[in-house]
Amino acid sequence: MSKKNSETPQQESVAVPRRQFLKAGLAGTAAAATGTAAAATGTLAAATGALAAGLGIPDWSRQLGASVDDAPYGKPSEYESTVVRRSVEWLTATREASINFTPLYALEGIVTPNGICFERHHGGAADVDPEQHRLMIHGMVDRPLLFTMEDLLRLPRVSKFFFLECAANGGMEWRNAQLNGVQFTHGMIHCVQYTGVPLKLLLEEAGISTKAKWLMVEGGDAAGMNRSIPIAKALDDCMVAFAMNGERLRTEQGYPLRLVVPGFEGNMWVKWLRRIEVGDESWQAREETSKYTDLMPDGRARRFTWEMDCKSVITSPCPENPLVSMGPNVISGLAWSGRGAVKRVDVSLDGGKNWTEARLEGPVLTKCMTRFYLDGWEWNGEPVYLQSRAIDETGYVQPQMAELQKVRGVNSIYHNNAIQTWHVTKTGEVENVRLA
Amino acid sequence: MSKKNSETPQQESVAVPRRQFLKAGLAGTAAAATGTAAAATGTLAAATGALAAGLGIPDWSRQLGASVDDAPYGKPSEYESTVVRRSVEWLTATREASINFTPLYALEGIVTPNGICFERHHGGAADVDPEQHRLMIHGMVDRPLLFTMEDLLRLPRVSKFFFLECAANGGMEWRNAQLNGVQFTHGMIHCVQYTGVPLKLLLEEAGISTKAKWLMVEGGDAAGMNRSIPIAKALDDCMVAFAMNGERLRTEQGYPLRLVVPGFEGNMWVKWLRRIEVGDESWQAREETSKYTDLMPDGRARRFTWEMDCKSVITSPCPENPLVSMGPNVISGLAWSGRGAVKRVDVSLDGGKNWTEARLEGPVLTKCMTRFYLDGWEWNGEPVYLQSRAIDETGYVQPQMAELQKVRGVNSIYHNNAIQTWHVTKTGEVENVRLA
Repeated sequence: MSKKNSETPQQESVAVPRRQFLKAGLAGTAAAATGTAAAATGTLAAATGALAAGLGIPDWSRQLGASVDDAPYGKPSEYESTVVRRSVEWLTATREASINFTPLYALEGIVTPNGICFERHHGGAADVDPEQHRLMIHGMVDRPLLFTMEDLLRLPRVSKFFFLECAANGGMEWRNAQLNGVQFTHGMIHCVQYTGVPLKLLLEEAGISTKAKWLMVEGGDAAGMNRSIPIAKALDDCMVAFAMNGERLRTEQGYPLRLVVPGFEGNMWVKWLRRIEVGDESWQAREETSKYTDLMPDGRARRFTWEMDCKSVITSPCPENPLVSMGPNVISGLAWSGRGAVKRVDVSLDGGKNWTEARLEGPVLTKCMTRFYLDGWEWNGEPVYLQSRAIDETGYVQPQMAELQKVRGVNSIYHNNAIQTWHVTKTGEVENVRLA
Repeated sequence: MSKKNSETPQQESVAVPRRQFLKAGLAGTAAAATGTAAAATGTLAAATGALAAGLGIPDWSRQLGASVDDAPYGKPSEYESTVVRRSVEWLTATREASINFTPLYALEGIVTPNGICFERHHGGAADVDPEQHRLMIHGMVDRPLLFTMEDLLRLPRVSKFFFLECAANGGMEWRNAQLNGVQFTHGMIHCVQYTGVPLKLLLEEAGISTKAKWLMVEGGDAAGMNRSIPIAKALDDCMVAFAMNGERLRTEQGYPLRLVVPGFEGNMWVKWLRRIEVGDESWQAREETSKYTDLMPDGRARRFTWEMDCKSVITSPCPENPLVSMGPNVISGLAWSGRGAVKRVDVSLDGGKNWTEARLEGPVLTKCMTRFYLDGWEWNGEPVYLQSRAIDETGYVQPQMAELQKVRGVNSIYHNNAIQTWHVTKTGEVENVRLA
């Protein structure tokens, strides 16, 4: 870069009126800056062409912006209107039993905003009046209990960040690389700070029988969604949650009450929670017999496979986030494990032959999404086979699809935690591919 | 409680159709549960009267709920429609320069949802086109730089939870207990996970002069909002942020780019950030001379009082969250410090004479809100003077207002971090009061 570029007008800038300075300054330094920035970061030149050609003061600096409205609930910028949860029409028989996928490609950090959280209903999103809603705990207990929302709000509560992943996340990818977008390959997941009453506390209040081994948890929607939960999990870290990301649950997330079953498949996180029955056997509910079982190669089905295996995916670049320039780029993604905290994430640029350890962004929390970054990757314009591989605190290593299929066959729908491969083409576009 | 109440129908429940069981079961056990729950938690009886009187299956369990719409951006439940950010009409001369307060009383955990985050504009919320937006870094640098948004997204980034508090938060309370609601006494604050590029990295890229001591940071709104920032802070933990809580910044929070100055007063977190000038003196901007200074008793003004002092407030109960029942209740609140992490929070029930240590909910992060709880407080129906007192990792203890006024006098508008007193009356209503 030329020395001339570093002769900046900082001495004059204070002395002249700001607007005049900006007009002259931007027009002047933009040309200079174009050159130096390009030298400094590789490829900034093209992007700043318009400015260098001569920029005035933009409209938004010339006129008053919108005023503060009273009492609105804010919305994203119009420029971000494509960042929404999305469903797939053909995936289920009715729209009341469909799925909305989280736009993972657009996320940063570990929080999923409530407005774009993955959701799935079995009988539509029930519209429950919190004043009328009740939670009953009964069965093998000393004292059957009935709670209003007001009652629950007077009990000790906890607030924890947890991911919720559908067991079917990636289910369409078991045999082929089918969907070209991380929103659909991995978007049946969200991660929020849930607030609620520890289930253990409610069960202790009811006084569970020493013979109790299972709970049946049931939703108040038209599907009466129910699942069996082992008592050990119920007494560990489950909670009866009424808030997510600081505010009350959204309707489609079970307002006013849902069960939180950290690390376990989302189907068990029963929404519009109305009833918990304590028993000594599992309930053999539809959702744990006909559905949410894994058909193995020998024709038998794995059942009660609750824990979500350690998994990760690169969210940038990805099909929705192509590379736009050679030179420095950031590789970013998300990792999680139903068995605890993520310990390490590796990134491969050559389809799994060589691995580089990624930087984990804190806080790294148990059964919570963890953001990882590989900084300053210099893309030289050649095709790349991008993969990420997560390792959790138990030492479990996320497998390649071939390894997973060796054990599980190709009949499964649920619990696909295989390593994802993104093929970055010469044009910077990104494709979902399956390596041999 | 009677023994009869523990004879629950769990043996029969599996054998009969679910709906029949529920109808009989709820009607039957509700009466039982009313009694036992009341015994167990103190005062549940009244709330369950309607149920005991005979409940059918509610409508939401009888009919399909809403279907999954394609591509919506979700909204809160209609039942939560009063939970919104709110402004105060008389507070500023124009609506373009007004303030929206966070509904702290409704929050749980530490995340403020983006839709209800505190916001304050000086020239309205600028509607900036991200394609056209540029960030310029110039002044005492080796290489003036000009960045597009696309450029910034290719640089290493960090994601951190930070609170943003306006220096004027509680400013209307300096002399009197004036506003009856925590939304207005303490709501000029929000806490989100910000994502952006470390400012240090951009400054190193530009190559700052060894003589540089200050930055001037300037917004692209019509106000051209600008502030001076000491170089040490800029090289410490500031970031040029493009996302909050996982998604791009909201328009009213500076879309597409704002400065994040952790722990420092919100006025310095310049929105719609367009220019950073490096210099060797402070800029003496309007917002650090005419405004955002603290008039002391001797007639002189403190200047450059950037760090937000350690502070806390009880958000439940509070004027918006009266107590509804005697017996067990949860006291919950938020604490924060601009100087690091919160170490401890104490709660007093007698206006500061006696203190009990509250439970801190993790994660406890630096320059971030921390949620605290006092569980299982038994309210006996007598009036209470509730206070919370935060202590940060530097050992600083949040002061009573009398102590603060002894040092600062009563002329200040900014930096009121005094202990808040809520008077809980015999009816459970909560008032903002000032103790002598």
